Amino acid sequence: MDQRRLRLGLVGIGKIVRDQHLAAIAQSGQFDLVATAAPEGHVEGAAAYSSIEAMLAHETLDAVSICTPPGVRAPIAIVALRAGLAVMVEKPPTATLSQAEHLARLAASGGQTLFSAWHSRETAPVDAVRAMLTDRRIEAIEVIWHEDVREWHPGQDWLLAAGGFGVFDPAINALSILTKVLPGHLAVQSAALGVPENRGAPIRADVMMHFDGSVPVRLDLNMRHAGTARWDIIIATDRGTIELGRGGHRWSVDGEVMPVEQGQEYPRLYRRFAELVDTGRSDFDIGPLMLVADAMMVGHTTREAAFHF
Amino acid sequence: MDQRRLRLGLVGIGKIVRDQHLAAIAQSGQFDLVATAAPEGHVEGAAAYSSIEAMLAHETLDAVSICTPPGVRAPIAIVALRAGLAVMVEKPPTATLSQAEHLARLAASGGQTLFSAWHSRETAPVDAVRAMLTDRRIEAIEVIWHEDVREWHPGQDWLLAAGGFGVFDPAINALSILTKVLPGHLAVQSAALGVPENRGAPIRADVMMHFDGSVPVRLDLNMRHAGTARWDIIIATDRGTIELGRGGHRWSVDGEVMPVEQGQEYPRLYRRFAELVDTGRSDFDIGPLMLVADAMMVGHTTREAAFHF
Repeated sequence: MDQRRLRLGLVGIGKIVRDQHLAAIAQSGQFDLVATAAPEGHVEGAAAYSSIEAMLAHETLDAVSICTPPGVRAPIAIVALRAGLAVMVEKPPTATLSQAEHLARLAASGGQTLFSAWHSRETAPVDAVRAMLTDRRIEAIEVIWHEDVREWHPGQDWLLAAGGFGVFDPAINALSILTKVLPGHLAVQSAALGVPENRGAPIRADVMMHFDGSVPVRLDLNMRHAGTARWDIIIATDRGTIELGRGGHRWSVDGEVMPVEQGQEYPRLYRRFAELVDTGRSDFDIGPLMLVADAMMVGHTTREAAFHF
Repeated sequence: MDQRRLRLGLVGIGKIVRDQHLAAIAQSGQFDLVATAAPEGHVEGAAAYSSIEAMLAHETLDAVSICTPPGVRAPIAIVALRAGLAVMVEKPPTATLSQAEHLARLAASGGQTLFSAWHSRETAPVDAVRAMLTDRRIEAIEVIWHEDVREWHPGQDWLLAAGGFGVFDPAINALSILTKVLPGHLAVQSAALGVPENRGAPIRADVMMHFDGSVPVRLDLNMRHAGTARWDIIIATDRGTIELGRGGHRWSVDGEVMPVEQGQEYPRLYRRFAELVDTGRSDFDIGPLMLVADAMMVGHTTREAAFHF
C-alpha cells in the first residue's frame, strides 16, 4: 500500500522555500529532497547545483518544485518537462499566459504531471466556504489586500519590475481563493493602477469586477501600506456575511469566528502533488492569472512617487 | 441543396460596417439583413433599433454580427447568446480574456455558433504562407505596423482609452495572421509601451516575442505615424524571405511579388459564419488576444506627449 517515495529537486531557494517548502517536504513522507538548483544557497542534506541543467546532468529525479521568481519559471519548467519529470510551480505559475499555455501543452503531450501550486486554495476554510456559497445569493464582494512590501518582500526588486506583477503578486492569492469558492463567473470591469515612477509594475491597484455579470466585486490592493497587513475577503450574502481573514487563515460567518487548523497549506500542496504524480494527472489552472492579465489590459495607469526599499 | 438564408441583425454601425460588412452581407446570398441596433445611424432596407434588446423584442433573427467598439461586445453577445442566436464578433472579440471565456462557455452550453471574426486571417496569402512555412526553418520575424490614427481611426477616443487596446487594436491583426501561419508556439518576452499623458492605452509599442522558444519576433507598432501606413510581416527563413505586406493584401517570396485576389476578407468571413451556423459549430480563438494581454502584463509603460485628434 506504500506510495513510492519521489526523488525531488527544488529550483530556487528564496524566502518562501525557507518559510514553507522545506518543512512541508520534510514532513510529507512522500518526497526525498535529493538536490537543489539555485545561483546561491543550499539546503542541508541535498546536493547543491547552480542550475537545473547541472542538477539534471548529475541526478536522477522524479519531480521538481519550482520556486524561483515568476519570470524564469516557464523556461525552467520546459527543461524539466522535456527531461520527463513531474513539475510543481509556485504561484503564479508563469509570467505570461502564452507561457502557461505552452507548459500545459508540453505536459499533456508528454503525459506528465503539471501542478500550479495556488497555496491559498489550501487554507482550511476554502472548501467550507465553497460549500456554503452554493445555496446563498451573493450580494457584494470586497477584497482588501494591504501589506508593507518592505516587510513581506524585502529587497525583491523583480517584483516591482515590469512583468513582476507588483501588488498582484500577493493579490493573486485572493483571486485564487475567489475563483475556487465562487459558484460562477468572475470578470474584470476596470482597474486603476498606481506605478511608482522608478518602477515598472503597480504597487497599488483598485480593481472592479463583476461576479455572474452584475454582483460588484471590488479589490482594494496596496503594497505601500505601513502597519499591520490585511488580507481579507468579505462576501456579503442574502443570509449574512462570510469573512475570510489573514489570507484564508481565519474565517467567520456573521461575526462568529469559526475554528481552523493552521499551517496546512504547503503540506496539503505537496500531498496533492504526490497524489497527482501517483495517478498521472495534472492540475494547472490559469484562471487567477487571466484575471490579473485582464486588469493590466484594461487598467488605467497613474504614475506615483518613486519607491525605494 | 440550397442553404437556408439566415435572418441577420447587425449591432453597431461604424466605419468598418460601412467600409466592409454591408457589401459582404449583400453579396453573400446567405444572409438577409433584417435589422440594425445602434444608438445612431441606420441601413437602407433594414429596421433600425437603438439597442439589441429593442431589436430582439421586435424581430425574429437567426444570427447577429457585432461590430460595436470592443468594450461593449461581450455584454451584447451575452444577450444574443441567451436569446438563442448565432453570434459573430468583430476582432478583438472582447475587451478581456475573462469575458471571452464566458462567451465560449455560454455558446458551448447552448450548442450555439460563436465566431471570432479575425478578418486578416481571410486575406488571400494566409493559407499559402502557412503551407510554405511547414517545410522551412524560420530564422527571424519582424512585424511593422505603422499607421496614422487620425486617418484610420478618426475621432475614435475609445480606442485610446484604458481598455481600448490602443495600437494593439490594429496590431492584433498581425497577431491573428502570425498565430495562423506559424507552425509552433509564440510567446511574449517583453514590451515597451508608450501611452500619451492624456490617454489610457498605448499609441506605440515595441514588443519582443519568441517563436518556438528562441526565434526572435519583433513587433514595431506605432499609431502616431505621419505618412503612408505600413502593415508588414517579414519572415526570414533558411530558404529566403517571405513578406506579407499591406496587412496581408500583398505578398512576396524573395522579392518576387505573388498574385493575390483582393477584397475577399469580409465575404469569406460571412461565408465561414454561414457554414459554421449550418454545421452547428463554433470558431472562437482567443490566441491573439492572449498575446496582447501578455504584452500589457509584462510591458513597461512610458508616458509620452499628449495626443489630440
